[in-house]
Order: sequence, then C-alpha cells, then structure tokens
Amino acid sequence: MNARCLIEVAFSLRWRDLDAFEHVNNSSFLTFLEESRLRWFMGLDGDWNTSQFMPVVAAVHVNYRAQLGWPGDILVRLYCERAGNSSLTLAHRIVGADPSETLYCDGNVVMVWVDPATGKPAPLPEAVRRASSSD
Amino acid sequence: MNARCLIEVAFSLRWRDLDAFEHVNNSSFLTFLEESRLRWFMGLDGDWNTSQFMPVVAAVHVNYRAQLGWPGDILVRLYCERAGNSSLTLAHRIVGADPSETLYCDGNVVMVWVDPATGKPAPLPEAVRRASSSD
Amino acid sequence: MNARCLIEVAFSLRWRDLDAFEHVNNSSFLTFLEESRLRWFMGLDGDWNTSQFMPVVAAVHVNYRAQLGWPGDILVRLYCERAGNSSLTLAHRIVGADPSETLYCDGNVVMVWVDPATGKPAPLPEAVRRASSSD
Amino acid sequence: MNARCLIEVAFSLRWRDLDAFEHVNNSSFLTFLEESRLRWFMGLDGDWNTSQFMPVVAAVHVNYRAQLGWPGDILVRLYCERAGNSSLTLAHRIVGADPSETLYCDGNVVMVWVDPATGKPAPLPEAVRRASSSD
Repeated sequence: MNARCLIEVAFSLRWRDLDAFEHVNNSSFLTFLEESRLRWFMGLDGDWNTSQFMPVVAAVHVNYRAQLGWPGDILVRLYCERAGNSSLTLAHRIVGADPSETLYCDGNVVMVWVDPATGKPAPLPEAVRRASSSD
Repeated sequence: MNARCLIEVAFSLRWRDLDAFEHVNNSSFLTFLEESRLRWFMGLDGDWNTSQFMPVVAAVHVNYRAQLGWPGDILVRLYCERAGNSSLTLAHRIVGADPSETLYCDGNVVMVWVDPATGKPAPLPEAVRRASSSD
Repeated sequence: MNARCLIEVAFSLRWRDLDAFEHVNNSSFLTFLEESRLRWFMGLDGDWNTSQFMPVVAAVHVNYRAQLGWPGDILVRLYCERAGNSSLTLAHRIVGADPSETLYCDGNVVMVWVDPATGKPAPLPEAVRRASSSD
Repeated sequence: MNARCLIEVAFSLRWRDLDAFEHVNNSSFLTFLEESRLRWFMGLDGDWNTSQFMPVVAAVHVNYRAQLGWPGDILVRLYCERAGNSSLTLAHRIVGADPSETLYCDGNVVMVWVDPATGKPAPLPEAVRRASSSD
C-alpha cells in the first residue's frame, strides 16, 4: 500500500465485541471501519452528506488475517484506493496498537454517493474528491 | 447461481439493526450470514467444531444491492461456491421474504478450518464436505 | 401480573446475542424489549411519534431470572404497569417459547414522551393512553 | 454518592452506538457498564472467575438522565453499593468526559457469583470483597 493514509483511528476493544468463540466478531470490524470513515468525513473541509447526496456502503471486502482478543487496542488506517464519478473505494488496514503492529484485517469498502430522493448515483462530493486525492 | 441452496433461514429484522441513517446497518448483514451458516453447521450429520478443528471466517465479500428498512422480513440463502482442502466458500443471497424477493445483498464468505491449538489449517471436516457437495 | 398483556412478540435468538460467556448478553434483552414496544406502538390506532412528541426511555429495571442459550426462541410479553401524564411504565416478562415457558427476565421500562424541540415532557399521546388502559 | 469510586473508564462513542432516533441506544449503556466492570475485575489482586465460581448479572436498574449523541466521549464510574454473601451491587454514574460532566445515566447493577456446575450461588470471591470494601 503506497497510498497516503487518510486517517488513523484508535479503538479500545469492548468485551462485547467478542463473540461466543471469544474472538472479536467478524461484524465488529465493519463497525470499526464505519467509525473511521465517518470521522474522516467529518473532518473534511466541505459537505459530504446533505439532502442532495449521501454516502451508502456498496460493497465490503474484508480479509481476516489473525484472531483478535480482548482486552486490546487497535488502529484502523484508511487509504484511498480509487475515487470514481460517484464512488470512493477506501482500502483499510487494521493493526494492533502495539509496536509490532500485527495485521488483523485488510481489504476495502466501496462507498457510493446517491441522491436520497431518487436513490440514483450523485457526483462524488468535491470535498471528498479533494481530500482523497493523493497529493 | 446454479448451485443447490444449502439452507434458507428467515429473519425478522430488529429495529436495532437500523443505524442512524435508518437503514439496516452494513454490519448486521454479517450477523445474518453467520446465523445462517451456524444453523447449517448444526444440522450436519457429523462434527464441524471440535477440540481438533474449528471454523474461522477468513474473508467476506458483500455487495449491498438495495437499502433495507424496518420492519421487515428477509431470507438468507447459502450456496456452496467452493470446497477446498481446509476452506469452504459459501455464497449468499439475501432477499425480501415477500413474493417479489427483492435482492438486498449477495457475495460470499470464506471459512477456514483451523486447529485451535496451533492455529494451523485443518482438513475440511468430512461432514462439511459431504453436505456441501452438489449432488 | 393481573394486567392484560398488550402484545406478545416472538424472537428467534441470534448467535450474536451470545457473549463470550456463551449466554445471551444482558444488553440483548433491552433490544428485545425495545422491539416489542415499537411493534406495539406501530399497531396503535393513532400517533405515538411525531414532530411534537416522541418517546424516550427514562429507566429500565430488569431482573435476569435464568441464563439463556442459543439456539432458542423466546416470547416477550408487555403489560401496562402505569400510565402517567407524560410517562408509561411497561412491565415485561420474557419466557421460553416452549410449553414450560421458563421465565428468563422480568421487570419494567419507563418511557417518557418529550417535545423533541425543547426536550420538555409532552402529554402521553391519546392513542397510547387508550391502548394501555386495562379494559 | 459518598462511596469511593472503584474505577473510572473512558469510552469513545461509536456511531453504531446510535440508533435510528440518533441517540446512543439504551442497550449500549449496559455494554459500557459491563466493560467497566470487567476491567475492574481484571485489575483485582485475585480470582474473580474460575471453574468454581463466575459472576452473572442478576439485575440492572438504569436511569437515563440526558440524551447522548455522537461523536462524544464519556466516563463510566463504578461504586460499591453493597457487598453481600454472594452478590455485589455496583452503582454507576456515566458522565460526559468534558469539564461540565453532564450526567447521562445512573443506577446500579447486581452481580451474583454462581457455581457454573450447579448454577447455585457461590461465596463472593475474596478478592472482590477486599477491593469493594470502602476503605
């Protein structure tokens, strides 16, 4: 991953993130990605969610690389993989917050901006495009 | 998808499946898939989870095809996409439980069986292989 | 509990309702109560949630009477314990969906209607008052 | 509350803690309490969960004092309200992590130690009794 990291968000795992197999449940990783993405959106210099356009999750591709326990702290790093006309593909790496930075999860999430009134694709917001471009 | 459906599980959505955008959250779909998969495992004629081998989620690939609201009922259908030496790729389709069967989600989940003591891959359990083969 | 049952809602437990102690997590019971309450609200003959008034949870009192496992089916029954000027106290009983009806949980939840604009208490909606009165 | 604070745990709220009413869901508060309790348990100088005794939640009493939004940071403070033969009543206060310390939630949770083999009450573990006593 040569791309510039857009944001790094630290998470303190919750015991409730564990499932009955005593590992952080596969669905919790999507919650960590969502949180990181939204914090990046909220830091943008401009609109990303209005009555004219809003982002929806179109696809997730997640590789689980190691089992994650509790208690623990992780870092989620997001990268721009591709900015399309209406879509943004955000790659991610979730690593341990310790110096060894064990890789727990990588992959990407595809967001698409839509017009809430029609459900049709809307142009990628300008602030999103600016912030996700690599330089 | 020509493959034989391995199991169909009905879900009644919960209001708590919604997020603050008033759609069923992207992470809830993984919970529906997990539940369906486990129910299929539990119906197998043989072991799928022992002190020698247990399944872990290695990867998920999920396409969100339409926004899902509450209240509502859905059907999750699982199909065998590939049975490997240690892994099983289960394709899925999540549709509305009404006659139109609106497609909300498709994709697949890759499970890998591992030896809990070592974390190394273990052979696909015989009962899983038998039940997932197509005819 | 002599009060008339306002609604009975059946739930199929999800594996994700379990926590790492392999019991349905204490927080999931609040989700079952919430779902049951909302389904009762939605069946009322009149408004319960508008731009002038909305219900908020003011207090929960929950006794966990037996440990609940997975898979399993439960029934949530709600009763009116008290209808005040702005508040409604809904008692509950959560039992197994089998003939023995093992009691897993009882207690009550206090809802208060507020004006979303001011956060101040609003009168109990007429439809709620009518439906919760005992005869 | 004159009692000594047993532990204070900081939480960064997650967007997924919100529900479709855009407030932190009532069930998430139980997750914050559980996390705080477990972290206190894990810091004890002695056993609190063994094959002979384990804690279960017997009752929760929660007052929701103000609506909580996202993003935000909160502090959970636990206090010993009563240490019985087999039970421990932990009072709590959940406040904003800002200087005004807005009160969002108070109440208590009753834990009971049981013998996992029989489900019968077990004596309060010595380490729990020591750490919860007020001086």
